[in-house]
Amino acid sequence: MTEGVSIVGAGHAKFGKRADAGLRDLAHEAVSDLFNDTKLDKSDIDAVVIGVAGDEFNGQGSPSAVINTEIGLTGLPTLRVESACATGTAGIIAAWNMIKSGQRDSVLVVGIEKMTSVSSSVATELMARAGDIRWEYPFGVSFPGYYALIATAHMAEYGTTREMLSSVAVKNHHYGAKNALAHLPREITLEEAMSAVQIASPMNLYDCSLISDGAAAVLLTRDSIAKKFTDTPISIKGIGMGSDVQTMAQRESLTELKGAQAAAKEAYKMAGITADQVDVAEVHDCFTIAEIVAMEDLGFFEKGQAGPAIVDQQTYIGGKVAVNVDGGLKSKGHPLGATGVSQAYELRKQLLGDVGAGRQVDGANIALSHNVGQTGQFVNVLIYERGN
Amino acid sequence: MTEGVSIVGAGHAKFGKRADAGLRDLAHEAVSDLFNDTKLDKSDIDAVVIGVAGDEFNGQGSPSAVINTEIGLTGLPTLRVESACATGTAGIIAAWNMIKSGQRDSVLVVGIEKMTSVSSSVATELMARAGDIRWEYPFGVSFPGYYALIATAHMAEYGTTREMLSSVAVKNHHYGAKNALAHLPREITLEEAMSAVQIASPMNLYDCSLISDGAAAVLLTRDSIAKKFTDTPISIKGIGMGSDVQTMAQRESLTELKGAQAAAKEAYKMAGITADQVDVAEVHDCFTIAEIVAMEDLGFFEKGQAGPAIVDQQTYIGGKVAVNVDGGLKSKGHPLGATGVSQAYELRKQLLGDVGAGRQVDGANIALSHNVGQTGQFVNVLIYERGN
Repeated sequence: MTEGVSIVGAGHAKFGKRADAGLRDLAHEAVSDLFNDTKLDKSDIDAVVIGVAGDEFNGQGSPSAVINTEIGLTGLPTLRVESACATGTAGIIAAWNMIKSGQRDSVLVVGIEKMTSVSSSVATELMARAGDIRWEYPFGVSFPGYYALIATAHMAEYGTTREMLSSVAVKNHHYGAKNALAHLPREITLEEAMSAVQIASPMNLYDCSLISDGAAAVLLTRDSIAKKFTDTPISIKGIGMGSDVQTMAQRESLTELKGAQAAAKEAYKMAGITADQVDVAEVHDCFTIAEIVAMEDLGFFEKGQAGPAIVDQQTYIGGKVAVNVDGGLKSKGHPLGATGVSQAYELRKQLLGDVGAGRQVDGANIALSHNVGQTGQFVNVLIYERGN
Repeated sequence: MTEGVSIVGAGHAKFGKRADAGLRDLAHEAVSDLFNDTKLDKSDIDAVVIGVAGDEFNGQGSPSAVINTEIGLTGLPTLRVESACATGTAGIIAAWNMIKSGQRDSVLVVGIEKMTSVSSSVATELMARAGDIRWEYPFGVSFPGYYALIATAHMAEYGTTREMLSSVAVKNHHYGAKNALAHLPREITLEEAMSAVQIASPMNLYDCSLISDGAAAVLLTRDSIAKKFTDTPISIKGIGMGSDVQTMAQRESLTELKGAQAAAKEAYKMAGITADQVDVAEVHDCFTIAEIVAMEDLGFFEKGQAGPAIVDQQTYIGGKVAVNVDGGLKSKGHPLGATGVSQAYELRKQLLGDVGAGRQVDGANIALSHNVGQTGQFVNVLIYERGN
């Protein structure tokens, strides 16, 4: 079975502090948007994959069925996946496997997170529980702390600077300001970014992504039926997955994610491309240092060169490769289970040339998404190409 | 790609109140048992699927990486799945898809739950949160209550009796008493079963499955490499999945699970068999009424006839079809994420003729597992056959 799999439709709920919407409402919003986008009947959907990272944010255990009920898709084969912050792409990959195996023809993937039902400190605490509750969490480390370790090591090893970190935030807010779906759609200056309140040295407020509510949805089908839904399917050309040992203390290096390198290698090989061919990328900038490390792990820049390249605007539109031109996790927001699906939503629009002035990467043919769970315990890399 | 997928090895931790073992220890025990069972190197494993239903039982968020680290399998593509009490078979199906799609050659599935870190009342409360937290949970219903509604309706509609319910428990304890892996390996009398303390009318203590700790593991490979690991692979011949609307109030009927009927139909069709051909079955007896409903949903008995058939010992070894002859959830125990994988472990042994006197279904060729999440919001049916 060599038939490929494509994305034939996508939908997105506005990211933000959505006091007006709970978990199921956000799912409904994204799926409604998808239905409006695509020539689709409910009966066209064979199965549903639900991506929600954490039940504790809103207290709903095993959330798939309440979501299916809300979106009107009960009775279908349903799977819920969880890969921490890489949950969304785990869902896309699971759906791809369901279709590629011959089991299903079309699978809806919905990634959702409702995080602001709890305070920021409780949310930070809940996320920290994804660290090892025996060897990490009890000693007080939470995610800003993990990435502060990575930043400190990267600065020591490669001379990465405060300005380089802040330049990631400035870029992502620059593009996020033009994205109507973004949580914090406003520009920031380099001075603001460099002088913000400290969170976990060297990470300050503008080095950290947002605690957001949101949802996104994509419909995957086998290629032979894709044209039933759209004239412009987007093909999934490459898939790579990697992982790593749980604790930071057991890592050989803090300045790279081995799981990301493995995932990228696998995805490039499957797609038959090299890093140089990527026109537009969504990478997992949960912290500014994470975008710098991602640029290197993905092979866009040599080790230690991503920081200078960002200052040099090489990851702006018109540079070597356009990165996070939807605002990224930093400005668009980071509702955990939604993020990977939101990446697919954005890259599909980029490949369709449908983003609009100021954010469109003109003539983009090949797109890559990089989605990281925890500090690289799960990394999924997907490569998309405009179909024919 | 028509190549099939087989189970080539399996392992099991003892189910019970395992004060000696946490989540990761249980996983280690099951995976060690699998490695002892199979001609296997770590490098033979391409990916890992982790099935854990609830993080709240032990506080470890996103548990895959701590488990992978404990079992010594870091760096591999990893997916965590959750389908409430059907999590284990969701994991097997996800692994099947990964192989059948061509993405992976061999996938390890580990199902685990550590439930007794919290009190029984807290565990019941945590499970109740899988009910709709808007329309069900706030009004006080928990799982014994949901199944009490089903039992009451079944009694009213089909004349199902107290004795029929208790006969399920007597059978499952009869076989569980012979299973060294069982949580409560002891016989009970019909009188004990009928007169036990009430939990949620008409369900009494012996109508309810156990809150257990446990783990089980299976290794799936594509058929072409199965013989590398074992001379006797067990083939996955049929897969079916179904689901249902979240709330009981929205169901058309309380005396059947539409998701189970759909899953069974799909699995039988894929396997090319009928219910009559099943020699041994593992069904999801989370409550005694659930086994009766399962017998009917799976087509083993006409609607309303499963209760009388159980009293008539038609689901004992030597009857029409042997059901839950490992003790089922009732006597073997029900560590949520482990249960579906444990079903596969047992059925593999049955098909290999490896169970031992008193529990072996002689000459069993075709086996079926039925795994239910919540009250049918997820149902997975798998059909296994001894390979050639």
